[in-house]
Amino acid sequence: MGNHDAGRTPVTVIGLGLLGRALAGAFVAGGHPTTVWNRTAGRAGPLVERGARLAGSAAEAVAAGPLVVVCLSDYEAVREVVGPLGEALRGRVLVNLTSGTSRGARETAGWAAERGVAYLDGAVLAVPEAIGTADAVVLYSGPREAFDPHEPVLRSLGAGTTYLGGDHGLSSLYDVAALSVMWNILNGFLHGAALLGAAGVEATSFAPVAKTLIETVAGWVPGYARQIDDGEYPALDSTLGTHLAAMEHLVRESESLGVSTELPRFVEALAGRAVAGGRGGEGYAAMVELFRRP
Amino acid sequence: MGNHDAGRTPVTVIGLGLLGRALAGAFVAGGHPTTVWNRTAGRAGPLVERGARLAGSAAEAVAAGPLVVVCLSDYEAVREVVGPLGEALRGRVLVNLTSGTSRGARETAGWAAERGVAYLDGAVLAVPEAIGTADAVVLYSGPREAFDPHEPVLRSLGAGTTYLGGDHGLSSLYDVAALSVMWNILNGFLHGAALLGAAGVEATSFAPVAKTLIETVAGWVPGYARQIDDGEYPALDSTLGTHLAAMEHLVRESESLGVSTELPRFVEALAGRAVAGGRGGEGYAAMVELFRRP
Ligand SMILES: NC(=O)c1ccc[n+]([C@@H]2O[C@H](COP(=O)([O-])OP(=O)(O)OC[C@H]3O[C@@H](n4cnc5c(N)ncnc54)[C@H](OP(=O)(O)O)[C@@H]3O)[C@@H](O)[C@H]2O)c1
Ligand SMILES: NC(=O)c1ccc[n+]([C@@H]2O[C@H](COP(=O)([O-])OP(=O)(O)OC[C@H]3O[C@@H](n4cnc5c(N)ncnc54)[C@H](OP(=O)(O)O)[C@@H]3O)[C@@H](O)[C@H]2O)c1
Repeated sequence: MGNHDAGRTPVTVIGLGLLGRALAGAFVAGGHPTTVWNRTAGRAGPLVERGARLAGSAAEAVAAGPLVVVCLSDYEAVREVVGPLGEALRGRVLVNLTSGTSRGARETAGWAAERGVAYLDGAVLAVPEAIGTADAVVLYSGPREAFDPHEPVLRSLGAGTTYLGGDHGLSSLYDVAALSVMWNILNGFLHGAALLGAAGVEATSFAPVAKTLIETVAGWVPGYARQIDDGEYPALDSTLGTHLAAMEHLVRESESLGVSTELPRFVEALAGRAVAGGRGGEGYAAMVELFRRP
Repeated sequence: MGNHDAGRTPVTVIGLGLLGRALAGAFVAGGHPTTVWNRTAGRAGPLVERGARLAGSAAEAVAAGPLVVVCLSDYEAVREVVGPLGEALRGRVLVNLTSGTSRGARETAGWAAERGVAYLDGAVLAVPEAIGTADAVVLYSGPREAFDPHEPVLRSLGAGTTYLGGDHGLSSLYDVAALSVMWNILNGFLHGAALLGAAGVEATSFAPVAKTLIETVAGWVPGYARQIDDGEYPALDSTLGTHLAAMEHLVRESESLGVSTELPRFVEALAGRAVAGGRGGEGYAAMVELFRRP
């Protein structure tokens, strides 16, 4: 089935939940003949109006083209829906954008290999509204021969279309690692909003300051990454010891304003351990050594 | 002393550490006659070459103009250096950009009020290299009458020059709240780098994905802030329950790759408590309610 004209490669989308609908919509918008299937057929309505074709069964949907994108709640649902389609999928590329673990991805890859199905595991690091835009990061892992011919089609889903490598588990690993960054940002912001709220400051007053700072820290990430790969953590701006002193301020402010001290104490304890371990004169990236140990 | 032509207001900078030197340099670059003083006079060399005037004593430096910016290691150093200058500072505006607590800021404000010194407390949310650029956020709190006439001069330090309000403690509060966001971002990124590193992925490969995600989350902050101020946390994209399921994936991946599970378990426990408290169907911002309670 090889390389297709990006504007005309037929795509099948199985699963029309919040995210699946956005994926199918982006393929339609990209000019690809798009065949869809969903357990609850009614959800396809608006997509069909925009030009998608609703298949009567998952097997019929799969037969429509060389590229099959699946996005269901979890891997259990994937097993249920895709499991019986082994024969129909033979010779096609199956792309699974359902969230899961690297283990689930590798198991599914094994299942696919036994059936002659080219398998790519993937992860969507974007909300449905961002699909198709410059903001959407979609990660893929699995055989490069399966990814390359379909990259132009998959790029309809977002400018951040990224191939990670042959190990099928990579997408899920990057996914949880990136989600973890997201949860930590939000925890920091929400605790800060609680702290300032206790002092009578609205969260919308804190937001512009927090937003600028988050963007600034985003700019530091490549430099910290190089330090990590080099295994050296010079304190280019501030030392861990200086950070620890400011963390104590945060704990005290939280106490005196009567909000939770759990998050600041946790952050302080982590840095405190790194400083106690002799890293007080190094930069913040030295904390990676702490996280490396179970 | 009122409003001065922004290009010509004389400024005094006391403290020429890493940050103080950058502050003085930005005033010089902004065309302001800049008088400096530092305990270790030798540090003034490069600034003097660029046109700053080195005063022989802190009192002499203060006498040079209406606006005195202090940036020392901590409030103890400020008490030591500025304490004896009460009379010299009378009628001038003292701006303290040393990091500290809101309590320290309010105490210093009390000291200044007794001596007829107009006092602004401030906080620099930027590394020295960013001073004077669009990225530098510098926060001020204290009487508006002290800030407004000097705003054009202070703006030399960064485009993010922000007046927060009359309560002197606000700068320190915003400062620790924003630093907390920074530490949490870095912790999330460093743990993610440790996790991917254990799977053989370099931190520099994770960095672009993490950077894009951090920038995306920055864009969500104003919306989450509005939810917090409204006290309603609709799940516009993903529910806390969905997040919790993915947090369990992160814990399991961390376990099986043999890296620390401390941060993911902490994050999971926080969200788990919010879900157990009945917030599983709400959006992530609902976590602010958890952080509000001591
Ligand atoms: N929404 C996001 O912001 C987002 C972002 C990144 C990743 N993700 C991931 O993307 C995946 C889908 O998320 P979503 O938001 O689209 O979820 P959703 O709105 O809950 O949709 C779930 C989809 O799975 C189908 N499904 C579930 N169990 C099934 C079964 N046993 N048999 C057949 N179909 C079944 C549902 O069909 P019915 O319509 O018949 O119920 C529906 O199409 C999840 O793994 C999620 O973690 C979501
Ligand atoms: N560097 C940053 O990235 C950064 C960012 C934001 C905020 N800050 C805050 O800015 C403040 C200054 O930081 P920095 O990086 O400039 O620190 P620094 O490089 O260590 O400089 C400390 C300054 O304080 C002076 N000092 C300390 N104790 C003194 C005393 N007892 N009497 C007289 N002078 C004294 C030092 O004088 P000598 O030269 O004589 O030692 C030096 O000028 C701190 O509160 C820091 O938290 C720093």
